[in-house]
Amino acid sequence: MSVGLTIGRYQPFHNGHLSVVKEISERVDEIVVCIGSAQVSHELDDPFTAGERMAMIQRALLENGVEKFFYIMPVEDIQRNAAWVSHVESLTPPFDEVYSHNPLVIRLFREAGYEVHGAPLYRREEHSGTEIRRRMLEGEKWRHLVPKEVAETVEEVDGVDRLRDLAVEDAPT
Amino acid sequence: MSVGLTIGRYQPFHNGHLSVVKEISERVDEIVVCIGSAQVSHELDDPFTAGERMAMIQRALLENGVEKFFYIMPVEDIQRNAAWVSHVESLTPPFDEVYSHNPLVIRLFREAGYEVHGAPLYRREEHSGTEIRRRMLEGEKWRHLVPKEVAETVEEVDGVDRLRDLAVEDAPT
Amino acid sequence: MSVGLTIGRYQPFHNGHLSVVKEISERVDEIVVCIGSAQVSHELDDPFTAGERMAMIQRALLENGVEKFFYIMPVEDIQRNAAWVSHVESLTPPFDEVYSHNPLVIRLFREAGYEVHGAPLYRREEHSGTEIRRRMLEGEKWRHLVPKEVAETVEEVDGVDRLRDLAVEDAPT
Amino acid sequence: MSVGLTIGRYQPFHNGHLSVVKEISERVDEIVVCIGSAQVSHELDDPFTAGERMAMIQRALLENGVEKFFYIMPVEDIQRNAAWVSHVESLTPPFDEVYSHNPLVIRLFREAGYEVHGAPLYRREEHSGTEIRRRMLEGEKWRHLVPKEVAETVEEVDGVDRLRDLAVEDAPT
Amino acid sequence: MSVGLTIGRYQPFHNGHLSVVKEISERVDEIVVCIGSAQVSHELDDPFTAGERMAMIQRALLENGVEKFFYIMPVEDIQRNAAWVSHVESLTPPFDEVYSHNPLVIRLFREAGYEVHGAPLYRREEHSGTEIRRRMLEGEKWRHLVPKEVAETVEEVDGVDRLRDLAVEDAPT
Amino acid sequence: MSVGLTIGRYQPFHNGHLSVVKEISERVDEIVVCIGSAQVSHELDDPFTAGERMAMIQRALLENGVEKFFYIMPVEDIQRNAAWVSHVESLTPPFDEVYSHNPLVIRLFREAGYEVHGAPLYRREEHSGTEIRRRMLEGEKWRHLVPKEVAETVEEVDGVDRLRDLAVEDAPT
Repeated sequence: MSVGLTIGRYQPFHNGHLSVVKEISERVDEIVVCIGSAQVSHELDDPFTAGERMAMIQRALLENGVEKFFYIMPVEDIQRNAAWVSHVESLTPPFDEVYSHNPLVIRLFREAGYEVHGAPLYRREEHSGTEIRRRMLEGEKWRHLVPKEVAETVEEVDGVDRLRDLAVEDAPT
Repeated sequence: MSVGLTIGRYQPFHNGHLSVVKEISERVDEIVVCIGSAQVSHELDDPFTAGERMAMIQRALLENGVEKFFYIMPVEDIQRNAAWVSHVESLTPPFDEVYSHNPLVIRLFREAGYEVHGAPLYRREEHSGTEIRRRMLEGEKWRHLVPKEVAETVEEVDGVDRLRDLAVEDAPT
Repeated sequence: MSVGLTIGRYQPFHNGHLSVVKEISERVDEIVVCIGSAQVSHELDDPFTAGERMAMIQRALLENGVEKFFYIMPVEDIQRNAAWVSHVESLTPPFDEVYSHNPLVIRLFREAGYEVHGAPLYRREEHSGTEIRRRMLEGEKWRHLVPKEVAETVEEVDGVDRLRDLAVEDAPT
Repeated sequence: MSVGLTIGRYQPFHNGHLSVVKEISERVDEIVVCIGSAQVSHELDDPFTAGERMAMIQRALLENGVEKFFYIMPVEDIQRNAAWVSHVESLTPPFDEVYSHNPLVIRLFREAGYEVHGAPLYRREEHSGTEIRRRMLEGEKWRHLVPKEVAETVEEVDGVDRLRDLAVEDAPT
Repeated sequence: MSVGLTIGRYQPFHNGHLSVVKEISERVDEIVVCIGSAQVSHELDDPFTAGERMAMIQRALLENGVEKFFYIMPVEDIQRNAAWVSHVESLTPPFDEVYSHNPLVIRLFREAGYEVHGAPLYRREEHSGTEIRRRMLEGEKWRHLVPKEVAETVEEVDGVDRLRDLAVEDAPT
Repeated sequence: MSVGLTIGRYQPFHNGHLSVVKEISERVDEIVVCIGSAQVSHELDDPFTAGERMAMIQRALLENGVEKFFYIMPVEDIQRNAAWVSHVESLTPPFDEVYSHNPLVIRLFREAGYEVHGAPLYRREEHSGTEIRRRMLEGEKWRHLVPKEVAETVEEVDGVDRLRDLAVEDAPT
């Protein structure tokens, strides 16, 4: 049995991420989706909590035809790159393959002896968290870039208002 | 929609825990199962990693007729009781009710305004992690006290040998 | 100008502590009262938060004739004894003398070059946090052992009930 | 009784801050002043320790006609925004209202259910920590922008020299 | 080239430890000596700082005929057993073999794929840190149980007095 | 006896660093070389682990005529400048003098009462870690800027490839 792991911050989880998970699911028997920087939230580049991201992802995978067995789990940063792979291993079931485009993630898993694949491609320009957060902030359309379940979760937690409140310029102190 | 949360160390997850989750699942629409002390492993009272416990629980719930939507997530200790409920909230989707027998957990969630129920009862004597770990150590029968999927995970990770190795008495240093 | 520092967990602040602060206040120009183990609360030996202890102490000192200028501040543990004095120094205004009966506190401040005095004596048997918490738990009289303002704060935060809830014996898990 | 909380880094505490505390003191019965990023010091943007800032603020409030009961306490960062309000609550006496201009502080307290007011206005251009530290570094006049007690504390701890020493450009390594 | 690693708390480093290092040095080309629980000091079971222990060990090895190339380094605890081997690896040069009698150390290195040997034997009864600290406390002879350089370091840092000061019984608080 | 301490990140240790250590060794009886930011690795500005840096330095000092007794030890960051000198003191044998060009290091040791000297001069332009890492990345010559033993260690740990892998530009996420 093969188990593939992928990791991202998922701020928020979008159609590109979903397409990656679906393509991985055709190559392995089980998938592990790690939510990185889990302890971070309420920042302009990281507005959503780990729990909110978990709800987005689990609902989206269940409703969008990912048929393989999958695990989703938050992974907090540990500020110690050399022990990070062990940290991930301690939080996840055993896995064989890693899918990522992040240079640090790729290098760390390779030094630990894992087979690492570039995550499968998807149309990148719009499908980035940065672009989606920009659209949320500026009042442009963003719902078509994420699974329906993600848009619902963003609404339930008042996500767009949170992002706009955080973007207000501070007075000097 | 009602969401119920329960939390335990699950060292290991046993039939009593499964029975609790099943009874909760009849009262709520979604269940959140938190794996407490997630950063702890390789100790006599806490032999299994969070990832191993996640595998045990997810497999057991899927194969044993828990039909409600459920989330499972590791929750690390933060050594700061007064912020612990917020810590849990940041790692989980929103929830309304808590099920627990632990006095500290009950008190902390009550101070935070949650409705807390005692977890439903089950036959306690044998169904305790302490008793199951004792049986593993002393070579007595323990598999009938846990779901089949848990016994399989314990074997895959060589769990009984780990426990016995940790129990060897150290020489003075 | 001389500044004297004293430190305790103050779970809760009682008449013995008050008497110590008053005696120190007659020997120095300013007093620094440090609330130790500030991050700990909701435990049987440490039921009150740092904020609750701060309220107890500040009200008690203002209402009970401590006429010297005083500072009160929480000091979190840092799990690194050799850097602990520096940690305290960074959180307090400069001080010259230390008053304590705790062997570790005395040794650490002496190694750092401070003059350390035993805290002045007071009737010890009943005036201990351990004894007062025992009385709270068992429903015996305790209010006469603490300043009136402390008893009021304990009531405002529902402190006796908290202690009793934490003392309930847990079921095996 | 109403209790109002305000929070700042106070590097250093200046006339603008004092004016805010005085205006809050006319609206509430008690004031809680939190010294944020308490663990940070000896940096160009954060030269003063929490203890030094505590001394500045307490002396300034006592000597400048703040007549309401007030608390001052250091609050260390916890790198976990979603648990930050609980962290503050555990370090402070209970409070009802929050005064702040910081977008993150405002959002976090609002999500926790608090009433948040913009801090009252004061002449902003010069009354900012950034401007005062710049003046200290460049040898311009700064004492008229802070309460007299603050200028005294800065002198006692050799603050301007510390700032200038930290600003020396490092050689390449 | 073979490199052997051994690890201990070395509170203090004694003749038994020295004998172990000498025997390892006959089997490998280079030795790595890790000082465990490096952040702990000023406790009854852990009186010496990492720096003091480093001085003891380095002087003892250089003066007592350990002729192989050796490294000595402090290793702080990380409270996360599953990432501990990676933590050690990040602090040390690469090594092939581990020598230890500690059950947890043995198990963790074995799970990480290392060859682990029991540390060579030495006369155990007296040669234990526990026994040597007891003798220091009670004024019995202990110098003959440690290398001369260790006894000198203990004296330089006033180690016996420190231990006795820490052993004074605290008054109730 | 005089003991001199110097500290750097040593990413990597180069001829300039070696020349500094040699000059210090002519002024003192023993040298303490601290490897700063020990927990950081696998970053573009900090590619090497503490263990790799330890190997580089120890080999280079032994093979290049540093004849005084020296200690080398990793020092992790503690994010609390005001306690940093105590942290260093707890990890090192006692020392009298400090050699550094870093403004923060100089100021912190001076506030703690140490005599601090600027590190002796060496030809700076090329002898900087920044320049050497740039040359590694761009395929230019760098081996002549470091001791032979350092170049060997970099090769053993595949350091140049690591640096290049980390420099790959990430795709948007």
